[in-house]
Amino acid sequence: MATKALIKTKIKDRLFFVNPKTSEVLGKKCYASVKDIPENIDYAVIAVSTQYVPAVLAECIEKGVRAAQIYTAGYSETGIPERAQMEADIKKIAKGKIRLIGPNCMGLYCPKSGLATIPESPLDEGPVGVISQSGSVLESFAYFSHMRNIRFSKIISYGNAIDLDCPDFLDYLADDPDTKVIAMYIEGTKNGEHLKPALINAARKKPVVAIKGGMTAHGGRVANSHTGSLAGSPIVWDALFRQAGVVQVHNFRELMNTAIALAYSPLPAGKRLSMITNSGGFSVIQTDLCESVGLEVPRFGEQTLAKLRKYIPLAGTSIGNPLDAYPVYFNLARGLGGLIDIVETITADGNIDSMVFQFDQLRYLRRILGDKLDSHMKTLIPLMVEACQYVREKVGKPVIICVTLDPYSEDEEDRGYNLELKKAFDREKFPVYPSLEDGVNALANLYRYSEWVRGG
Amino acid sequence: MATKALIKTKIKDRLFFVNPKTSEVLGKKCYASVKDIPENIDYAVIAVSTQYVPAVLAECIEKGVRAAQIYTAGYSETGIPERAQMEADIKKIAKGKIRLIGPNCMGLYCPKSGLATIPESPLDEGPVGVISQSGSVLESFAYFSHMRNIRFSKIISYGNAIDLDCPDFLDYLADDPDTKVIAMYIEGTKNGEHLKPALINAARKKPVVAIKGGMTAHGGRVANSHTGSLAGSPIVWDALFRQAGVVQVHNFRELMNTAIALAYSPLPAGKRLSMITNSGGFSVIQTDLCESVGLEVPRFGEQTLAKLRKYIPLAGTSIGNPLDAYPVYFNLARGLGGLIDIVETITADGNIDSMVFQFDQLRYLRRILGDKLDSHMKTLIPLMVEACQYVREKVGKPVIICVTLDPYSEDEEDRGYNLELKKAFDREKFPVYPSLEDGVNALANLYRYSEWVRGG
Repeated sequence: MATKALIKTKIKDRLFFVNPKTSEVLGKKCYASVKDIPENIDYAVIAVSTQYVPAVLAECIEKGVRAAQIYTAGYSETGIPERAQMEADIKKIAKGKIRLIGPNCMGLYCPKSGLATIPESPLDEGPVGVISQSGSVLESFAYFSHMRNIRFSKIISYGNAIDLDCPDFLDYLADDPDTKVIAMYIEGTKNGEHLKPALINAARKKPVVAIKGGMTAHGGRVANSHTGSLAGSPIVWDALFRQAGVVQVHNFRELMNTAIALAYSPLPAGKRLSMITNSGGFSVIQTDLCESVGLEVPRFGEQTLAKLRKYIPLAGTSIGNPLDAYPVYFNLARGLGGLIDIVETITADGNIDSMVFQFDQLRYLRRILGDKLDSHMKTLIPLMVEACQYVREKVGKPVIICVTLDPYSEDEEDRGYNLELKKAFDREKFPVYPSLEDGVNALANLYRYSEWVRGG
Repeated sequence: MATKALIKTKIKDRLFFVNPKTSEVLGKKCYASVKDIPENIDYAVIAVSTQYVPAVLAECIEKGVRAAQIYTAGYSETGIPERAQMEADIKKIAKGKIRLIGPNCMGLYCPKSGLATIPESPLDEGPVGVISQSGSVLESFAYFSHMRNIRFSKIISYGNAIDLDCPDFLDYLADDPDTKVIAMYIEGTKNGEHLKPALINAARKKPVVAIKGGMTAHGGRVANSHTGSLAGSPIVWDALFRQAGVVQVHNFRELMNTAIALAYSPLPAGKRLSMITNSGGFSVIQTDLCESVGLEVPRFGEQTLAKLRKYIPLAGTSIGNPLDAYPVYFNLARGLGGLIDIVETITADGNIDSMVFQFDQLRYLRRILGDKLDSHMKTLIPLMVEACQYVREKVGKPVIICVTLDPYSEDEEDRGYNLELKKAFDREKFPVYPSLEDGVNALANLYRYSEWVRGG
């Protein structure tokens, strides 16, 4: 799989296959041993059965390979003493002679060089660096983040970490100019004394968002059988992250949501947000949600309210904040209560630090507009993007976008317009979320991080 | 909008339009006044401007109409004293002469009779009854639940509740034989002394799941400007729900997730679940998630582990629980470690009360199987459904299904198979969720409810 991925990237001319059983792989010469390759080798990917790993590793050392990734699994993570011994043997072979990543890992992915052992990885570069003890969490992060407009500088999966470990990779990404944000998944470390300064150093240089797996009793048990990690005390980890200024998250979705916000949004000056929504009931639930995650949805100031009232009719709307005002999606005019005027008004309010812009209007627009929906959306989509750009660039406040879409929706017309809108925001590098919960969760973490940056 | 919805249902022959400005609506005769209709009228939907409501209401009373829904908004929820007075005037007109639902509400939706004022409502009947103070929460609930295989007995949106209020509707649904589960959204009530016994009575007869909107300071402010409700103390509401045995939830997604589980799943005998997943890292995160919401993912017993080890190879898998074993999706045999054998083995374990079955394998299967994917899925999909039916029907333990799909995915092949699988489970009335977080959240609430039923 890795072979197929690599042969498609720009690394292909500096790529050599080794397998004693064949002389050709995917149309390229295949060598019987790494020692037969007529050029110097920087990095080896070892994906042979456990029984062959020591010999292959010894050949790599003889060849002068600087670092190797051991993809092979079946070591200490199995809980079987003989297999833990096999792992110890590899470590001994390598010590001082070659640096190791793994075993039991997917290794490195670096779009800039074309090193891509993860299938279907996007080949364009981006600002997010990822460190993950789990190969599949990392593979999923790459796969799903792609849909969310995230691209990567480096992705590192390091499994059982018998040599290079999380702190080493943190040190690297902290100084990597292509990495603007670090996202990490860790289950445990044997290098606790190095991890703490590495986290502190990295978080001082750029935002770091992390999940620690194995924070519960059974979660710790599972982590141990996954990467042989001792999960450690949740209290110690919580304190470590807090002290270092690492944004700690608790599930995969939150990791992705937060990485998107950190990559694409400026930081809010405070916790007070304005929200554009489209329903009285949802205004209430969503305000409760914001407040329960540490944000605040204050009432707009009197001046703001007076200005809004001029634009928005009384019945069926609410302008206090959230702004629940369906007419703004129908009025495409400028200077007359259209979206840009409204957004300008509510974000000019001194009580407001950021804006959550939610679009879930399609079916309502369709009911009213019928055949005129398409031409309406053709004007409305760029208008919504322009309005949010205005807030981010002219008013200088962060904007979180929620383009609401149900995963199981088969309303292809609705999906089509929503995806079009989502991509229009993607192009302008806004953080975009498929539900308000996701967006608010990301904003709460962005705010948490901004407080830490301000020394709070 | 309501007119268009109603004309399509079986109520159309008992439906009369009233509007003095026209003599025909959608091909049907239109009357100048309700008094001109040559038949008795049970129920009126009033959707005229506030200024005309008193006169129309007076005519309804004269005609002997038993109940009326006032769709019209712009009353006490605006916060304007004159408008609160208009609301009081209506109340006075109606008192003792006609029962009112609203104002500021979407009224009743009842697929059995064809009364459907909510656009695009599904016309087939189902087990869930909904009471909502918010019209749009209710409309969204109907719209999104449809994608989630939920159908309804009655849906009631009651807005400012100047006459009939939440407790009245609870009393009704508690005794309604077509309603198996009650889902509700409430912001506040002026009939607190009636609400408590109504909740206790309803929850004694069938599961009730509820969101209380306005549980935070600003949430309460927004609720007040939405339906004129005084939100009340969160502590009082929490205690009320707990005492009554109502499953309290905190957001819209959780309301839907929990209603699905209550409608379609038997109750678990305890909190210990088995999970089928496909990744070491996710096994850890997901176990943490389960434990953090009050569930437990215990290690399988030694007998179970010994049996699993016979079926599942060592490297790259983990069998402790969660079961992280990709080979089960490739092995379509029976009696030889295929899915049914595995599922039978883990659910026979005495430590296990329920199963969370997660499918997010499509892209992995595709990478390995290539062209053979389609024929593989044609066998695998019915096999997965059969395995879960076995657990639910033969082993007698609840099964929560997660068919993972990202809302923004445009991989139509992946979407296609996932939706096919989702619908195959829908047909057998399993609770199906688009993410593991959603499914685990629903199971946690199902467990919470089962504890209350057991007197815990």
